[in-house]
Amino acid sequence: MTRPHHISIMGSTGSIGKSALDVVRHANACGDQKFKIVALAAGSDAEGLAAQAREFDADVAVIADETKIDELRSRLAGTNVTVDAGLSAVVEAASRPVDRLLAAIVGSAGLESTIAAVRAGNDVAIANKESVVCGGKLILREAARRGVKILPVDSEHSAIFQCIGDGRSLEKMTITASGGPFRKASLEEMRSASPQQAAAHPNWSMGVKNSIDSATLMNKALEFIEAGFLFDVGEDQLDVVVHPQSIIHGMAHFSDGSVIAQLGAPDMKTPISYALAWPDRTATNVDRLDLAKLGSLDFESVDEDRFPAIRLARCAYQHGAAATTVLNCANEVAVSAFIAGQCGFLDISWLVEQALSRYLEGSMQGIACETLEEIAFLDRMTREMTRDILGSDLRRMGG
Amino acid sequence: MTRPHHISIMGSTGSIGKSALDVVRHANACGDQKFKIVALAAGSDAEGLAAQAREFDADVAVIADETKIDELRSRLAGTNVTVDAGLSAVVEAASRPVDRLLAAIVGSAGLESTIAAVRAGNDVAIANKESVVCGGKLILREAARRGVKILPVDSEHSAIFQCIGDGRSLEKMTITASGGPFRKASLEEMRSASPQQAAAHPNWSMGVKNSIDSATLMNKALEFIEAGFLFDVGEDQLDVVVHPQSIIHGMAHFSDGSVIAQLGAPDMKTPISYALAWPDRTATNVDRLDLAKLGSLDFESVDEDRFPAIRLARCAYQHGAAATTVLNCANEVAVSAFIAGQCGFLDISWLVEQALSRYLEGSMQGIACETLEEIAFLDRMTREMTRDILGSDLRRMGG
Repeated sequence: MTRPHHISIMGSTGSIGKSALDVVRHANACGDQKFKIVALAAGSDAEGLAAQAREFDADVAVIADETKIDELRSRLAGTNVTVDAGLSAVVEAASRPVDRLLAAIVGSAGLESTIAAVRAGNDVAIANKESVVCGGKLILREAARRGVKILPVDSEHSAIFQCIGDGRSLEKMTITASGGPFRKASLEEMRSASPQQAAAHPNWSMGVKNSIDSATLMNKALEFIEAGFLFDVGEDQLDVVVHPQSIIHGMAHFSDGSVIAQLGAPDMKTPISYALAWPDRTATNVDRLDLAKLGSLDFESVDEDRFPAIRLARCAYQHGAAATTVLNCANEVAVSAFIAGQCGFLDISWLVEQALSRYLEGSMQGIACETLEEIAFLDRMTREMTRDILGSDLRRMGG
Repeated sequence: MTRPHHISIMGSTGSIGKSALDVVRHANACGDQKFKIVALAAGSDAEGLAAQAREFDADVAVIADETKIDELRSRLAGTNVTVDAGLSAVVEAASRPVDRLLAAIVGSAGLESTIAAVRAGNDVAIANKESVVCGGKLILREAARRGVKILPVDSEHSAIFQCIGDGRSLEKMTITASGGPFRKASLEEMRSASPQQAAAHPNWSMGVKNSIDSATLMNKALEFIEAGFLFDVGEDQLDVVVHPQSIIHGMAHFSDGSVIAQLGAPDMKTPISYALAWPDRTATNVDRLDLAKLGSLDFESVDEDRFPAIRLARCAYQHGAAATTVLNCANEVAVSAFIAGQCGFLDISWLVEQALSRYLEGSMQGIACETLEEIAFLDRMTREMTRDILGSDLRRMGG
């Protein structure tokens, strides 16, 4: 038997982390590729984390929330699992040598442990698109310096990674968007949409923030930027097409007229397994694709009047990593405000656009975005600025 | 400048040959990859062949029809093109050393020059599916012996070749079928269909024999067998799905649930260019794919009651190369009979089925199919047998 593939999962109790452990469970039971779990890290779900660490016989289990250390310790009493807590412990766990680390901590909080993993020489399967949007340049520079591979986990980027070959003769790449719950909604309906309506995603099951991002298409805007950074292409080589069935996830278009696409049931286990097993594949139990049963695949252009997010992403990406960081952070503030009832659904993109405009016109433009500290500073400044816009303009407009 | 890619084209005045020269013309004008034409061979179109040889400054132009030698010679007077005629001259031309030979002579007549090219160590881009269906085992055995690469030109096989990677973790492959002009026809309509109706292909422009094969789905049956031989998979790993728009040409399904597909406008220049330029790609002027403009891609299962061809292909393929040769030769006789008004449209598949049954039950089963001579013998026997069935059973049935 070949040596099992050693992996760590940062964010193991979230949706991606759980799916990853499903992949590992299935592969270890009946796949060609076996996995050994080194470290698991979670935010605050001590019970979930302990159960995972126990089942998969992890070497280390770390919880970010330090108040949960005792619970975690008692739940793992009698096992060989090393227990720790706190953000620095998460970073330390990410630095443990593995064949592949799955970076699945949500939001910009995941960036530090991702960088730590790269610096420790760990190949990183990156599920945290915010990390790439804010820190993509930094991650890729550090990875290049250490010969570390960064593997996409998002289904769209995994698709392109599976289709792009060596990247020669590439004309452009397309990622697909389901179109979200408001694909057919009028501007009026969108204006009055509630967080509950916005969070109802048609194809993928995901968290609330992601679901709302999917309703504004800001999710796709972040993925647009992520694709640009990960595959190092210009914004004129990036395209988004609405495809409500979410069967084709991404495509690479070549100079001979050929388009290579990756298809599959909308189940994250496929791209996760690819990122963990690459350059091999490992058997999963996801539903197999049956196109005759599906009947048809539909496509339409993005309506940029109702969904300005893609246009904003193009603009931000053209202006570089600081602008894309502003877009991401402004969006996090705007989505929180929408969930809290402080603004309407359409105000989310409007707020992002305002923040981006102010950044591009204003004094913040000098702020660099090349180290963790600079990114964190820009993140804070953007949040303040966005809350400021939210407090003034929006009230003035009766938003 | 790098050395141009040396190629020869057998069947240069046919539809595939012309498209190949379009590819070469465009690539030489503006592609990264340049091509030098070594030999061109045609059946009887001396005027067309001469014009091609002159434009592309070929080293050799050969016409199979010996009565056309004087015309060809006079049309190429004053050039440096070496002129020859006859089948043995075609075989000799195929043996000239090149980087890639395009085998595009239609029908089983192409097999001998293909084998000669392989034996001379030429990588072969194979557009002649009948060659593969009858002589696939022979071609691949000879190719393996000499380290020669066989590259598919049919759009479906090119698609799979572009999607399959190293073939590990492959579960199955799917080729698509437009469904032909009778996709929505009733059995009654098909029974009374004329050759003109049957030859009207919705998406691809091709010759009459190919168009009728596409109406019976025998075209897809031959491609099913071709895929089996070229990619060395079992019949349980081969699937056909009807896809009327002919945009997805073929798919490879992997054990992790991923399906990699190749898409493109239905234009043979894309797969031809890939087979000529592989492992590179060369720029073509084919229409670029725009899924949003297309709107939707549809899929349905093959209706085996109206289209028994795929079932016959599965059966023949399971029984090996002799059975697939019988299927192909019986079909050639049946299509000729249909065009000549000697049988109805549905009788084509019926004749093939009868021929296949007689072969599988009868005395011919001992005939080997491993050398050119054996294949030629089996071909003749099958033609006789099929004409025999046509003369007796069909008249008896009032077909």
